[in-house]
Parts: sequence; structure tokens; C-alpha cells
Amino acid sequence: MKTKQLQDVPRTFALILETGDEIVTELRRFAEAQSLTGSSFKAIGALSDAKLAWFDWESKKYKVPADIQEQVEVLSLIGDIALKDGKPEVHAHMVVGKKDGSAHGGHLQTAHVRPTLARVDFDRITQRAAEAD
Amino acid sequence: MKTKQLQDVPRTFALILETGDEIVTELRRFAEAQSLTGSSFKAIGALSDAKLAWFDWESKKYKVPADIQEQVEVLSLIGDIALKDGKPEVHAHMVVGKKDGSAHGGHLQTAHVRPTLARVDFDRITQRAAEAD
Amino acid sequence: MKTKQLQDVPRTFALILETGDEIVTELRRFAEAQSLTGSSFKAIGALSDAKLAWFDWESKKYKVPADIQEQVEVLSLIGDIALKDGKPEVHAHMVVGKKDGSAHGGHLQTAHVRPTLARVDFDRITQRAAEAD
Repeated sequence: MKTKQLQDVPRTFALILETGDEIVTELRRFAEAQSLTGSSFKAIGALSDAKLAWFDWESKKYKVPADIQEQVEVLSLIGDIALKDGKPEVHAHMVVGKKDGSAHGGHLQTAHVRPTLARVDFDRITQRAAEAD
Repeated sequence: MKTKQLQDVPRTFALILETGDEIVTELRRFAEAQSLTGSSFKAIGALSDAKLAWFDWESKKYKVPADIQEQVEVLSLIGDIALKDGKPEVHAHMVVGKKDGSAHGGHLQTAHVRPTLARVDFDRITQRAAEAD
Repeated sequence: MKTKQLQDVPRTFALILETGDEIVTELRRFAEAQSLTGSSFKAIGALSDAKLAWFDWESKKYKVPADIQEQVEVLSLIGDIALKDGKPEVHAHMVVGKKDGSAHGGHLQTAHVRPTLARVDFDRITQRAAEAD
């Protein structure tokens, strides 16, 4: 186990995503725009579709058992932002609820919001100081 | 996507709900008593029953596929408080675990705690200054 | 309902658990090493196995319907640390996603990480002052 203590900036960004927004794209764009080097987030909402993956330990590859093409509730979205090759990367897992009340989930690959994902709380923020280009 | 930066009050209310408490009612009552205008929360616990809904995009109405009348674990409860018509409103999604280990969930309509919901962390708090009546 | 207001220390410990780590053991060890008297945490990751329990209200005992012996995604791990008989105790609930995308879960008894549980955000921290032995 590795541990790291953060002196939190007591600050949160509350995001609201709207119909048609692709979650990973929007969160990455936000993280880049704000020069985030790290953050955690959680959210709830609803979707028109989602690709949720499972990591196959044997092949060391992601498979997508949950390729969802129907309206679902986002029961939980938990994830974080970390730098990879100098750029903020989104890592998130999601649980969704279907029309029959059953729950499904996996590693978030892509998902489109409908009608909202609200609210996404971005906190535990570490940020790069503004730099000259 | 809309974003808003909150200057967090570094403060949390840790709530414990007990047998028979209805979650939405208690959280709304707490938000009103504390004059909350916004907050996020998360919790775990257990329930005797729950009505969990799914939003039907076609009819724009909530349906209740998960009308649960048995003891379940609350695997996650994530939600927020926001003002609607000047009053704090609770918006929350829940995942529950049944006797067979299967997970179910939806938009929280009502749920009764048994034996506890602990602990509910209310943070990211915005609050109205005390006003004269 | 009981409520308690915490003056948060604006501080988080971000933990990363690695292959083979047993989650409850590691979190308890961490809480003891840091003299935590209270904290909340959330995390995502993946596992090689997990025992997830359901509380039987009739017998007042935990049963283990989800004795999982396969690679799963940790879709959400939410829990807290509280003192019991003067020692920090871990209380956590977990949702996991299987190879077919289905979600399962319960009260966390034991679980082994593979390849990572990242990141575990320990916040809402209350801590005992360092004492002489």
C-alpha cells in the first residue's frame, strides 16, 4: 500500500452535464482547462447509452460486457483524475440501473448523458500553477 | 456542461439514521433546519423497504421497478441538496444488495432504515444566513 | 436521527492498494498507524476475490451470499472508520461488477486487490493527538 497526504484546497467544482454530453470527454476537457493534476469526483444522473468494461486479468485487456443502448439511471459514478504523460486522465467506475431495477456496471469507457448528470463534485483538487506557453 | 466553483466551508455534518426513519423525509427536515441551500452527501446502511425509480424518457415520468419489501443493504447512497422554489430538495440515487447478493437500484423515492444508515456525510455545504421571520 | 458537526481538517490521505492486499486489514492498519478516531472513505479498483455479506434481520447475523472467487471491478467502495473499544474499526459496503456486467454487493468482510484499488480517499478525518506510551 502506498499513501500520500494531500493538503486539501477547500474548494469544489460542481459540474452539471446535459443531454448529449459524453462524460469522459467533458471531464477530461474540464481537467485540462483547469490545469488539474489530480482530483476525485462522484456523481449521479441518467444516460441514453454507456459502454462499461471489465478487466480480464488473463489477457490484461478490457472487455465490454455492458454495452448499454437504453435509458438508465446513473446510480453511482466514482472516479479520479491523475496525470499520465503530463496530461490529466479520467479513471472512473459506474453503476447503472435499468428499467427493471437491476444494477449493472464496470469501468467507464464512454457514456452519453440524458437528461442530466448532476451534480459532479470535483474535489481533492491539485492544480498546476499557471504557466507561460 | 455548466460549472460552478464553491469555496467550501471545511465542515461536515455526520448524520446517523435509525430504525424506522424514512430517509428522504429526514434529510429534507435536516436541510431545512440547517437552512442549507446546497450540499452533497453519501452514505451506507441497511433498510426494511425502499421504492427506487427509473426515469422513462418517452413518457417523462418516473416508474418504480424496484418496490422492495425486504431487508437490504444500502451499498451506496449518493445525492445532493438544492433549492427548488426556495426550499431544499433531496435528490439521491441508491444501490441496494439483496439476500442473494444481487444489486438493484434507482432514484430514491422513499426508504425506511433498519437498523441504521451510518454515517451520512453532508458536506460541500452552502447555507443561508439566519434571517428574521 | 443523530447529528454531529465536524470541523473538518482540510486534509485527505490518498491510498493506493496493490495486488494481494486485503482491503479491511490494510485500512485498519492505516487507521491505527495514523491514530484515526474517525474518517470516511470511498474508492474504486479491481479484485481477485471478495466476501460480501447481507445482514439477516431475523437472526441478527451476517450471511455471505456473495462469496466471489473471480476477477471483478470494484464499482464503489464506501465506508467509514469509527472507534470501537478504543480501536479504529472499518465499516464498508461494496458494489462489484462481474465479467457479464452484472452488479453484486454487500457488507465488506474480506477482499483481495488485483491489480489496484486506486485511489482510496480518506477524508473527514478526526485524529487522536500523539500520546506517550
